[in-house]
Amino acid sequence: MHNFKDLVKAFAEKFSNEHFPNTPTGLYQPGTYFLSLGGKRIRPVMCLMGNELFADIHPDAFNAGMAIELFHNFTLIHDDIMDAATLRRGMETVHLKYGPDAALLSGDVMMIKAYEYIAKLNGQHLSKILSLFNTTAVEVCEGQQMDMDFEKRDDVGMEEYIHMISLKTSVLLAASLEIGALLGGASEGNCKHLYEFGRNLGIAFQIQDDYLDAFGDPEKFGKEIGGDIKQNKKTFLMLHVLEVANEQQKKELNNLMQTNPSDKIEKVLAIFKACNVDAWANELKEKYMQIAYQHLEDIAVLSVRKKPLMELAEFLVQRDS
Amino acid sequence: MHNFKDLVKAFAEKFSNEHFPNTPTGLYQPGTYFLSLGGKRIRPVMCLMGNELFADIHPDAFNAGMAIELFHNFTLIHDDIMDAATLRRGMETVHLKYGPDAALLSGDVMMIKAYEYIAKLNGQHLSKILSLFNTTAVEVCEGQQMDMDFEKRDDVGMEEYIHMISLKTSVLLAASLEIGALLGGASEGNCKHLYEFGRNLGIAFQIQDDYLDAFGDPEKFGKEIGGDIKQNKKTFLMLHVLEVANEQQKKELNNLMQTNPSDKIEKVLAIFKACNVDAWANELKEKYMQIAYQHLEDIAVLSVRKKPLMELAEFLVQRDS
Repeated sequence: MHNFKDLVKAFAEKFSNEHFPNTPTGLYQPGTYFLSLGGKRIRPVMCLMGNELFADIHPDAFNAGMAIELFHNFTLIHDDIMDAATLRRGMETVHLKYGPDAALLSGDVMMIKAYEYIAKLNGQHLSKILSLFNTTAVEVCEGQQMDMDFEKRDDVGMEEYIHMISLKTSVLLAASLEIGALLGGASEGNCKHLYEFGRNLGIAFQIQDDYLDAFGDPEKFGKEIGGDIKQNKKTFLMLHVLEVANEQQKKELNNLMQTNPSDKIEKVLAIFKACNVDAWANELKEKYMQIAYQHLEDIAVLSVRKKPLMELAEFLVQRDS
Repeated sequence: MHNFKDLVKAFAEKFSNEHFPNTPTGLYQPGTYFLSLGGKRIRPVMCLMGNELFADIHPDAFNAGMAIELFHNFTLIHDDIMDAATLRRGMETVHLKYGPDAALLSGDVMMIKAYEYIAKLNGQHLSKILSLFNTTAVEVCEGQQMDMDFEKRDDVGMEEYIHMISLKTSVLLAASLEIGALLGGASEGNCKHLYEFGRNLGIAFQIQDDYLDAFGDPEKFGKEIGGDIKQNKKTFLMLHVLEVANEQQKKELNNLMQTNPSDKIEKVLAIFKACNVDAWANELKEKYMQIAYQHLEDIAVLSVRKKPLMELAEFLVQRDS
């Protein structure tokens, strides 16, 4: 059994190899640049953990992990175009550095490269894993579309927001675990519980993300506090406040979002605090964590094997950056 | 054995079914719109023909054909963004009608849907066909990148232009045939000859495309004659003229391309004719057709089975629109 740190290191070593040839430079340099920006590599590590929950790590779990990480990075490159984002991991986004056409096409080829790693999988597992990978990839696109649709609406409910987050963020975490489990020969029931562990953990992860944007420690967070507030982003926190605030607070919030004064972040945070959003967010996160842990509990393997996944869950949800 | 027309009809019937769910509308409507614009469906028909060359048509040849046609349409949607094209098949391009973000994401999901059809293939063939599909998809991206790179250069040689065309256009035709052949249980040698038949046919097809733009019959062509000339596109014809024209003609060509006068098309065509480009293009096309036919000849099946492929080749290369 390996712990989280060991697996991050083992994966990073394999992933640091070149994924692309040198030419055409215009096609491959943007992708190489983007991958060099790093990242926590959480999803491939989840694939390795899902695998090791049931068996010794299969070499194919690394191939599946590569596919998952490349797919994830492809979505980031294309999302950054759609969100007109300027920074990713503190560095210029691909479309800003190389132009939108380069970001588009280098993203496309990165997605195909992901499928090249899927194609390396042993025939016995290939069909099932390819299907799960496809379903998940479609869902991630649907989540991104819903996210963009929500930006233009002011009547987004909590339930549909959670559905969007589940598609945009959680299903890839869940599928990463299940793909590992499939490679480890897990039963269908165990696969489903592990998937649901990942899906609920992903929702808790996003709540933490939204929480940190508003209430994080600026020194540890590494980003400006209130970025979501600045952009009028619909987050768990904002949607909740719009539900529970009194008329006076709602009026002020709407006014702040429309006029964008220089002290907007400060004033929105004051309303967040007055509405006890921080405590509410922690409770909601706890609720999803409990559902996640129950599914982990229900997986029929020795508890000791579940330790790395518990450790991972703690890391994802207690993190302060 | 089925002829070209029968196979086009058989495929079109299956392909006309819905490929996408209704929601999120913003994600799926652009793709549905684009597919409704039609197209010759040549690639999936080549897959069916490659299959029937060796055996009765396998139901999986339709699944592979769907994947190939969806992949091809995905590349068109994204290429139209990069080329800032306004019209496709006489109708608005996706990015113009729905915006660039919608074109980007609906293209992405169309590519994933292509892989969903690949995932339906029988396990016995899946691994090999997925690998060939991936390799081809990467090559198509490389071809598109080279095409964009060439637009910015004025020293493109004939050989590298043919290499670009081979990647951007021919390999998908070739792979369509080979995927069908693999499903028909063809030997490696036969697969390779069929692939090379398709690849060389694809080059001849592109020469015909470039030829029609300059020398087509406006009434049959359905597009304005000289569109490539108008855009200063590097085509087989233009690259050849830049090689063989005398100093006076070269000077005039460069001047026309820089100043874009209203009679540019007329004047460039006059130089094309003075340099006998039309006869040269027909000879070059004939050369690639002969290579293609030789590979078809070398496939070890009864000649009578090759008839539909001969018919297809005629159609692609003799067409006037």
